[in-house]
Amino acid sequence: MNKDCKKETQSTIDFIIFGATGDLAHKKLFPSLFNLYKDFKFKEKIKILALGRSPQSSEEFVKRFDDTIAQSTQRDDFYKIIEYFPCDFTNIDELKKLKDKLDAACASRIFYLAIPPLIYPDVISNLESVGLNKTCDTHSTFSRVILEKPFGEDLESSKKLNKIILSGFQENQIYRIDHYLGKEPVQNIFSFRFANNTFENIWDCKYVDNIQIRILEDMGIEGRGEFYDSTGALVDVFQNHALQMLSILTMDKPKEFEENYIREEKNTLLKSLVFKDCIKGQYEGYTSEDKVSPDSKRETYVAVKLEIANERWDKVPIFIETGKYLNERRTEISVVMKKNKDKLFKGNSNNNVLKFLIYPDLGIELKLLGKVPTFSNYEVTDIDMKYKYSNFFGELKSEYEKLLIDCIQGEQINFTRSDEIENAWVLVDSIQKEIKDKTPIIYPKSSKGPKETIALLKKDTLYWV
Amino acid sequence: MNKDCKKETQSTIDFIIFGATGDLAHKKLFPSLFNLYKDFKFKEKIKILALGRSPQSSEEFVKRFDDTIAQSTQRDDFYKIIEYFPCDFTNIDELKKLKDKLDAACASRIFYLAIPPLIYPDVISNLESVGLNKTCDTHSTFSRVILEKPFGEDLESSKKLNKIILSGFQENQIYRIDHYLGKEPVQNIFSFRFANNTFENIWDCKYVDNIQIRILEDMGIEGRGEFYDSTGALVDVFQNHALQMLSILTMDKPKEFEENYIREEKNTLLKSLVFKDCIKGQYEGYTSEDKVSPDSKRETYVAVKLEIANERWDKVPIFIETGKYLNERRTEISVVMKKNKDKLFKGNSNNNVLKFLIYPDLGIELKLLGKVPTFSNYEVTDIDMKYKYSNFFGELKSEYEKLLIDCIQGEQINFTRSDEIENAWVLVDSIQKEIKDKTPIIYPKSSKGPKETIALLKKDTLYWV
Repeated sequence: MNKDCKKETQSTIDFIIFGATGDLAHKKLFPSLFNLYKDFKFKEKIKILALGRSPQSSEEFVKRFDDTIAQSTQRDDFYKIIEYFPCDFTNIDELKKLKDKLDAACASRIFYLAIPPLIYPDVISNLESVGLNKTCDTHSTFSRVILEKPFGEDLESSKKLNKIILSGFQENQIYRIDHYLGKEPVQNIFSFRFANNTFENIWDCKYVDNIQIRILEDMGIEGRGEFYDSTGALVDVFQNHALQMLSILTMDKPKEFEENYIREEKNTLLKSLVFKDCIKGQYEGYTSEDKVSPDSKRETYVAVKLEIANERWDKVPIFIETGKYLNERRTEISVVMKKNKDKLFKGNSNNNVLKFLIYPDLGIELKLLGKVPTFSNYEVTDIDMKYKYSNFFGELKSEYEKLLIDCIQGEQINFTRSDEIENAWVLVDSIQKEIKDKTPIIYPKSSKGPKETIALLKKDTLYWV
Repeated sequence: MNKDCKKETQSTIDFIIFGATGDLAHKKLFPSLFNLYKDFKFKEKIKILALGRSPQSSEEFVKRFDDTIAQSTQRDDFYKIIEYFPCDFTNIDELKKLKDKLDAACASRIFYLAIPPLIYPDVISNLESVGLNKTCDTHSTFSRVILEKPFGEDLESSKKLNKIILSGFQENQIYRIDHYLGKEPVQNIFSFRFANNTFENIWDCKYVDNIQIRILEDMGIEGRGEFYDSTGALVDVFQNHALQMLSILTMDKPKEFEENYIREEKNTLLKSLVFKDCIKGQYEGYTSEDKVSPDSKRETYVAVKLEIANERWDKVPIFIETGKYLNERRTEISVVMKKNKDKLFKGNSNNNVLKFLIYPDLGIELKLLGKVPTFSNYEVTDIDMKYKYSNFFGELKSEYEKLLIDCIQGEQINFTRSDEIENAWVLVDSIQKEIKDKTPIIYPKSSKGPKETIALLKKDTLYWV
């Protein structure tokens, strides 16, 4: 492409958003791009090309952000770098026009597919067939594509999707977003584990008793009945967010802190996950939701027990709980340490727990036992040590800002690789096979979910910490 | 004694204070006894017999506490349980009178020797020779003796003192006070180590790089020139407070949480201490202090390097620093963890440190590395997790209150045994031999002490954390 490009070497980037008139673009993408625009020095380097089907002027288009981006001179300037480009990107002829436009500039390209995953295959094929996967050979420009989850709906469809993408794009051009990987406390798990010896030394089945990951939501499906009834908690949250966090938490140390070494270790971990048990739940009233089948067996809740089939994590039970309409919104990872065999002290004998707080608190908590300051009495009770982000750092950047910058800078640590995706699906498919036809346990809205979840842990004489 | 005692079984205690007109009694002992009197149910069970040489009435005597105990009805009631008893306790005939008085009550006895250690041998011999070490055979009363440090001034004198005490008293009657063992954060070291697996699992030379104990004082000798010039930092602080804390920190797990198992382990640890190096300092102007020899080589500061000759702590350097007129008053114990060999992240690469904060902060701090929340950048920086007593518990009891209650209840965990004392002296004597005749390094008042201390650690490529 553009083999004889005579333009000056360019370091500008065309940021092309497919589905720019959609919800994600409106709520997340443009506000994040605006923040990046303010914070960083790429003001003169980036141009945003907003693609949608309906014809409208750029001036008309940007007005929609007046409610998600606060008014300021900077916003006016930001609006100026946005060009609206009407384009039916399922139509190859229209994509050719896009190509001509982009080639004229000879900038690097980031394609952000903020479109329904169902049309990923078509759009990606089209991008490839008009040659938008490649850039000018003369200049060191790049072409990258960002995709939102879900990546497929099972192993088979994800393989197909990966095949299509990889036929035109190299792995290092593909940025699969799992926005949990943009969360600061999730990213910090790497650093916390591998920069500090204290915990990494006891990070195995000899010292760790069990692991608990909880992604609890207090809202329902919020009108997205059609989407949710064909998705469910396993596909919507477990396959991506939960398994990604688990893989970062339990993977072996990468040889270097580099995207491919890291993703290799994560992938190895994902491959070794073994499904053991599952509680399937559905909130009361789910089947009466709009566009939900009245006899739907779709899970709005799962509590899954896994094991990791390697030496390090031999027989350590992993419990992952996620669900909608629970009594709280909270995301946390608990590493429960083994207890002392002998009990020297009176009082509590709770396990030590290292808790990564992801939401709503951001930080790390170490639950321990400490002496009750009484007389002549070595009774112990629960105490804890806390690390709070807010005590050390100012306001944190949003997940999308961070992931977008990563992509602009060509850093793939926080994006999932095709093999990770597929291996996560292998596990999820094995769980689906087990539970798909099962009647879900109905739990009341705003409750703790099915009571059976307590029994799931009790089987191992464990409890949620 | 009192073989034919016909009195009703008594559970009252006579608390007999030798040196009741002295400073310790005035500032610490009586105020603590008053607090105990308020808090506990022994109001009707305890009587205080205050012994001093000068004749005065009980009413006259108690007046002296009007400045250390706040006025209240309770204070008036407390004053009523105090009886002043004029007694020259170096005179055996006067002690016989004391015995007659105590025998008449047939209560349990606690003798608190708030007297100059120089006269310990005489007073103790006298107590024994008049039979005050024993109580009525009929009733299950006890006789206990509390001694303040220093216990001797070297191995030889401490052996002599122990021999005298042990010729009349059993070890379980003897309560040697090291007031650091009454400090809540020092007592919590036991619980923190042995109730929590998290740290005890990495509590050895494989994981611990070095240990640093610092007892820093910002005051000078405060007019006690005569005492201090014959004592010095090694005897005044190092031999007792520092070595006691070190032994609790590094001892093996006792078979049971019981006074003699614990003291056995502490003693074993103290026996295995090996002196390696020492910086001897003296603050500028010390030799001009009142009652200090003008050519005194007495150390007001030491930084000592030790090792523990056992498998667990093989080659782990221990640094103990204590001194007067430093730039701050602070007591803390730092357990410095070994670093990762490979450095995966940009930024700091400081060791993890577990810090027991004894004074002025009370708590535990874990210094770690955490991700700096920046973009595309896995730089790490210092963060910490904190446990603060004040977040969990109300006001803590004073050291003396706690130690007095221990003694009343017959709990010896927080009192030092004769063999511990002697083994601490073995080490201190070996250091004295090395440094006694050395000219101390003069350091400015309110400084960090001799600069040479930095070099002491630098030899091992270490630094004070």
